[in-house]
Amino acid sequence: MSFNSFGHLFRFTSWGESHGPALGAVVDGCPPGLALSEKDIQPWLDRRKPGSSRFTTQRREADEVKILSGVFEGQTTGTPISLMIENTDQRSRDYSNVAQQYRPAHGDFAYDAKYGLRDYRGGGRSSARETAARVAAGAVARLVIPEVKIQGYLVELGGDKIDRQAFDEAEINNNPFFCPDKKAVERWEQIVDNARKDGNSVGAIVECVATQVAAGWGAPLYAKLDSELAAACMGINAVKGVEIGDGFDAARSTGRDNADALRPALEGHGQARFVSNHAGGVTAGIATGQPVVIRCALKPTPSILSPLPSINRDGEAVEISTKGRHDPCVGIRAVPVVEAMVALVLADQKLLHRAQTGR
Amino acid sequence: MSFNSFGHLFRFTSWGESHGPALGAVVDGCPPGLALSEKDIQPWLDRRKPGSSRFTTQRREADEVKILSGVFEGQTTGTPISLMIENTDQRSRDYSNVAQQYRPAHGDFAYDAKYGLRDYRGGGRSSARETAARVAAGAVARLVIPEVKIQGYLVELGGDKIDRQAFDEAEINNNPFFCPDKKAVERWEQIVDNARKDGNSVGAIVECVATQVAAGWGAPLYAKLDSELAAACMGINAVKGVEIGDGFDAARSTGRDNADALRPALEGHGQARFVSNHAGGVTAGIATGQPVVIRCALKPTPSILSPLPSINRDGEAVEISTKGRHDPCVGIRAVPVVEAMVALVLADQKLLHRAQTGR
Amino acid sequence: MSFNSFGHLFRFTSWGESHGPALGAVVDGCPPGLALSEKDIQPWLDRRKPGSSRFTTQRREADEVKILSGVFEGQTTGTPISLMIENTDQRSRDYSNVAQQYRPAHGDFAYDAKYGLRDYRGGGRSSARETAARVAAGAVARLVIPEVKIQGYLVELGGDKIDRQAFDEAEINNNPFFCPDKKAVERWEQIVDNARKDGNSVGAIVECVATQVAAGWGAPLYAKLDSELAAACMGINAVKGVEIGDGFDAARSTGRDNADALRPALEGHGQARFVSNHAGGVTAGIATGQPVVIRCALKPTPSILSPLPSINRDGEAVEISTKGRHDPCVGIRAVPVVEAMVALVLADQKLLHRAQTGR
Amino acid sequence: MSFNSFGHLFRFTSWGESHGPALGAVVDGCPPGLALSEKDIQPWLDRRKPGSSRFTTQRREADEVKILSGVFEGQTTGTPISLMIENTDQRSRDYSNVAQQYRPAHGDFAYDAKYGLRDYRGGGRSSARETAARVAAGAVARLVIPEVKIQGYLVELGGDKIDRQAFDEAEINNNPFFCPDKKAVERWEQIVDNARKDGNSVGAIVECVATQVAAGWGAPLYAKLDSELAAACMGINAVKGVEIGDGFDAARSTGRDNADALRPALEGHGQARFVSNHAGGVTAGIATGQPVVIRCALKPTPSILSPLPSINRDGEAVEISTKGRHDPCVGIRAVPVVEAMVALVLADQKLLHRAQTGR
Repeated sequence: MSFNSFGHLFRFTSWGESHGPALGAVVDGCPPGLALSEKDIQPWLDRRKPGSSRFTTQRREADEVKILSGVFEGQTTGTPISLMIENTDQRSRDYSNVAQQYRPAHGDFAYDAKYGLRDYRGGGRSSARETAARVAAGAVARLVIPEVKIQGYLVELGGDKIDRQAFDEAEINNNPFFCPDKKAVERWEQIVDNARKDGNSVGAIVECVATQVAAGWGAPLYAKLDSELAAACMGINAVKGVEIGDGFDAARSTGRDNADALRPALEGHGQARFVSNHAGGVTAGIATGQPVVIRCALKPTPSILSPLPSINRDGEAVEISTKGRHDPCVGIRAVPVVEAMVALVLADQKLLHRAQTGR
Repeated sequence: MSFNSFGHLFRFTSWGESHGPALGAVVDGCPPGLALSEKDIQPWLDRRKPGSSRFTTQRREADEVKILSGVFEGQTTGTPISLMIENTDQRSRDYSNVAQQYRPAHGDFAYDAKYGLRDYRGGGRSSARETAARVAAGAVARLVIPEVKIQGYLVELGGDKIDRQAFDEAEINNNPFFCPDKKAVERWEQIVDNARKDGNSVGAIVECVATQVAAGWGAPLYAKLDSELAAACMGINAVKGVEIGDGFDAARSTGRDNADALRPALEGHGQARFVSNHAGGVTAGIATGQPVVIRCALKPTPSILSPLPSINRDGEAVEISTKGRHDPCVGIRAVPVVEAMVALVLADQKLLHRAQTGR
Repeated sequence: MSFNSFGHLFRFTSWGESHGPALGAVVDGCPPGLALSEKDIQPWLDRRKPGSSRFTTQRREADEVKILSGVFEGQTTGTPISLMIENTDQRSRDYSNVAQQYRPAHGDFAYDAKYGLRDYRGGGRSSARETAARVAAGAVARLVIPEVKIQGYLVELGGDKIDRQAFDEAEINNNPFFCPDKKAVERWEQIVDNARKDGNSVGAIVECVATQVAAGWGAPLYAKLDSELAAACMGINAVKGVEIGDGFDAARSTGRDNADALRPALEGHGQARFVSNHAGGVTAGIATGQPVVIRCALKPTPSILSPLPSINRDGEAVEISTKGRHDPCVGIRAVPVVEAMVALVLADQKLLHRAQTGR
Repeated sequence: MSFNSFGHLFRFTSWGESHGPALGAVVDGCPPGLALSEKDIQPWLDRRKPGSSRFTTQRREADEVKILSGVFEGQTTGTPISLMIENTDQRSRDYSNVAQQYRPAHGDFAYDAKYGLRDYRGGGRSSARETAARVAAGAVARLVIPEVKIQGYLVELGGDKIDRQAFDEAEINNNPFFCPDKKAVERWEQIVDNARKDGNSVGAIVECVATQVAAGWGAPLYAKLDSELAAACMGINAVKGVEIGDGFDAARSTGRDNADALRPALEGHGQARFVSNHAGGVTAGIATGQPVVIRCALKPTPSILSPLPSINRDGEAVEISTKGRHDPCVGIRAVPVVEAMVALVLADQKLLHRAQTGR
């Protein structure tokens, strides 16, 4: 079955293809009485909008969101919020190649194997264009958790890491890479330019931190906070790995070094103070109140100009190179998407926690 | 809310605490007519059973499973299969310390924050003992996908990697580490012994490979095969990171290098042949027919003899060291648990795929 | 929480208010490869369209459906099918009365009690206008179960029953009442005309029969076929009672009289022949292969011209009479809605059955 | 698929067959900190226990419930509560008849059609014995809604109605019929005795009223309070019809007569006073704060001594009469089951409402 809904109580259902007339999200379970208009959503969409720098796809989409239901006199009513984004720049072109051939590292072969047919125009449903729906829904989710701050950024691009000592949050929105390290920006420009000139692409690692997540959020055992975040992020196009807190490094640590010691809370700062945050804000699937830290590995964009060996629908050998307008590093525009998915998980968990405990 | 069920169609609900009278799983949605008795489940439980070597906890549990419903005359009936495992070795001891104090890197603090109270005996519901229920349910799942082979093993322990050149599948069940590299076994014995003597613990990385997964399984967009696997594995106790295929290394690769080229299938070998498997058997959330490869990072056991700074329920500073019987490397016994969760996801996806496509 | 999705595998999510810009349904889980265009949906919408006779509301809506996703080259792709119907005849008027007052037997008071606010224009989300989304989704569901025939009709209006002896299926679509008894039509015209002239309204009973439902459909124990049908139908606006087969009359029967005796099947007619169908095609929550028979009681339209005592939002006594364009018997236009809900349940159960049994 | 879980947030999963070793329910999502022991559950089980009068089955079951998890030091912990009831009186007998033949009006034929096999001992999973699990789960649900009072009773048996003028709540638990009308009791004894002597059985109608349900509970549009109640009750063994409030009579009323006029609330009695309750406490799927009234029609017990024509698994004609111990009127013991299902729906809706609105 197709499962195009995400979330338990705060839920959204996404629909739409890359080259259809529109795409959208229906947000269900939103608390009533929240102030909401298109203006609350549009800025987040603009962050992931294509064509905003030479480091992303040159497709030009206004990505203008319309609210079709669920809001009355400027407030959410508690009924479904239908969000629609029209596709405006679906360039007419010849799709006969991609229709008959399987682009390596794309969903083409797998979609055909599953459904027996596919909407091949621009990747159809498997296109990263669908992530606009997630970002729109995520913008609504943020209103449910106004106390939480969610910040995503790149910590690595093309294998080149930021310098953690040079981390400057103010820098993140000052460059086309959501990069918190000013010096890395220059290097990354070079890396992406080189990749593009070479008809190639590069990967990246997104980190996302959510602060002021209340201790107690999380629904053990099979909707644990970290498990839900992993599902949310692994489901984003091109993500191949997810870490919480120290992640894979935790596997190389020891029980002594990996323990986040607790100390008495400072006056007016909650119940406890943690000396470190190896856990990334989650133990036993429940938030500890520390910053929730998640990292996602994004593979390099599979659509590249360089020819790759493949087969067509008849099983015959072909060579395929992907023309068209593509992100040389899909990881860049993934930043607002990861933020959105984190917001969606947290809004959902807030409601779940409130349901069970009344807090 | 607590969400103690896992899966969409092939589903199980788990219950039980570390030191309660019993724990169990109710498996729902199982196809009828499958041969099933306790003998099909017990061997998998025995693989994760505590006390089988000096490298795991010395708690002694028979972990004997009983089928209480859903099977008639040796066959599944399509109705819920209730599996129960009695706890036999809940050693009576003094819990006053752990009742009032928060063990760092454990769920103690978070459970109290969520629920306002907790069953502190042996970790209660957050104990890894619950994974016995997963393994039991996973054994039933395997019957739904007899065509699929699932093999887990450790590829790293305490930061020490296996030599991929020395990989020998036959070796995996010959040593207490589920280690496929004979030479690594000797080193790991040393590492674990040292950790234990030092009152410390170590982490590990589990890899699990599922072969003969039919191309097409997976339910885009929000129950993608990789997303479901990530949720399933990140939800296992102590897991802090999950990778599919090349995982984080994919983020350091290029579009050209990361592409799995397709070639015409060899006679009688499906629709296509892939030259490589960087994708780990999943593209766009759907199985490609290649081996599905997942890796999980397990943090070191938080329960260690060394004293750690913490606080008690009144917020006062304390020192805490965990006595009792604990795995010096919880990653070892995680191998059969990862396998079980992979089996549960695949069985579920098989049924979902059949529902939608009739295949 | 709002739960605006219906179904397990074949699912739809509905959105929209009576006087918003549009309403719609996102159909998820549809099998791929089904021929689908707006032409397959429009006729069903036209059946429930307002303004088609003097016996229904005079609001004029084209109820033109647009498919925004999930269909490619005339076939379903297995991805979400977004259906949108624009509201065109939302007459601008003064809503100050209904905004501040609670119309008896309407959702006004309850919506305010739940959400603290409501979209009062035309009933907002609680308007029967939303049933257009159900009918659109139901039209897609019918394509999943082409072997099944679903026929709804009125068996009673304003307390006046049809003559079962005069039942003529061909008559159903020949009159504005979906009435299978020609003689009853004349009487019903009188009843509805009288009610309208009197500033009053009447109720009705819808019966719906689904034939060729495969024996075996149904998902015990908590998604039984009859239970799902009851939920589906009780959730339709104005429905206050649901019966399967003999329904309440079964409670007045005896075990001997109520038993549907089985006889050997006639050549080529399945596994068994039933002598009667008191059960209405369902035993123990599973289809028997006999016609599935369901009846729904619809209360009289609550919106009437006659003044009724009520209160306003400040709790003060008021008198309220509902102007505007309303159905004098909401039960009439419920017929295609009941059919749609039955189709949605059956399509879902077909996929569920196929998932578990492979048949 | 089998769907053996009920509820959204407050959920239970039931398992077990009539003649297996045990049956049970796993209650998930229960708020933490509620006082709970077996003593809170047992009295409700005792109410539905077989063998308590000559008017119910003579099977003797202690129906003793054990809590296996989820409770610690007398309080719910927020984790799954596993409830188990052992079957003690599974009389050994010859099942060869029922194994090979289909009892009319039973699930035998349908189960075989669905699953290809069935546990035929005592009806297996389709036995009303499973309702013990519902009652046990319902007892926990009651603790979540201590402010709500739920009272079920019979209003009709074998076609004989109670006199509403003679309604005496105190009488309900004074007779074996849960009958609120003393005079009806005498008539009903006669009716049931006659049916049994005649090798026959009779039906009944259960009414259940829940008071102090907070205005606002209910989750439109597809988990409406009345829709959920209908699903819950139609899913009870032998139920063939469900009504809310005036139910089918509402279809014979007029808009004027069916309207529940609102009047200013009396001091300290909520927001509004309703002059009548035709709606049965629910409008537009949301509770109004009035008593929630539901009625269920139960067919006569299908197991009767009189021989009925049927077929065997080979499709050959047979005559079948059901020996064994059966309720001559299954509707009697349905009273506590209906109450339990109502409690389960209300507890669930309370948590859902709290999640979305914070109230």
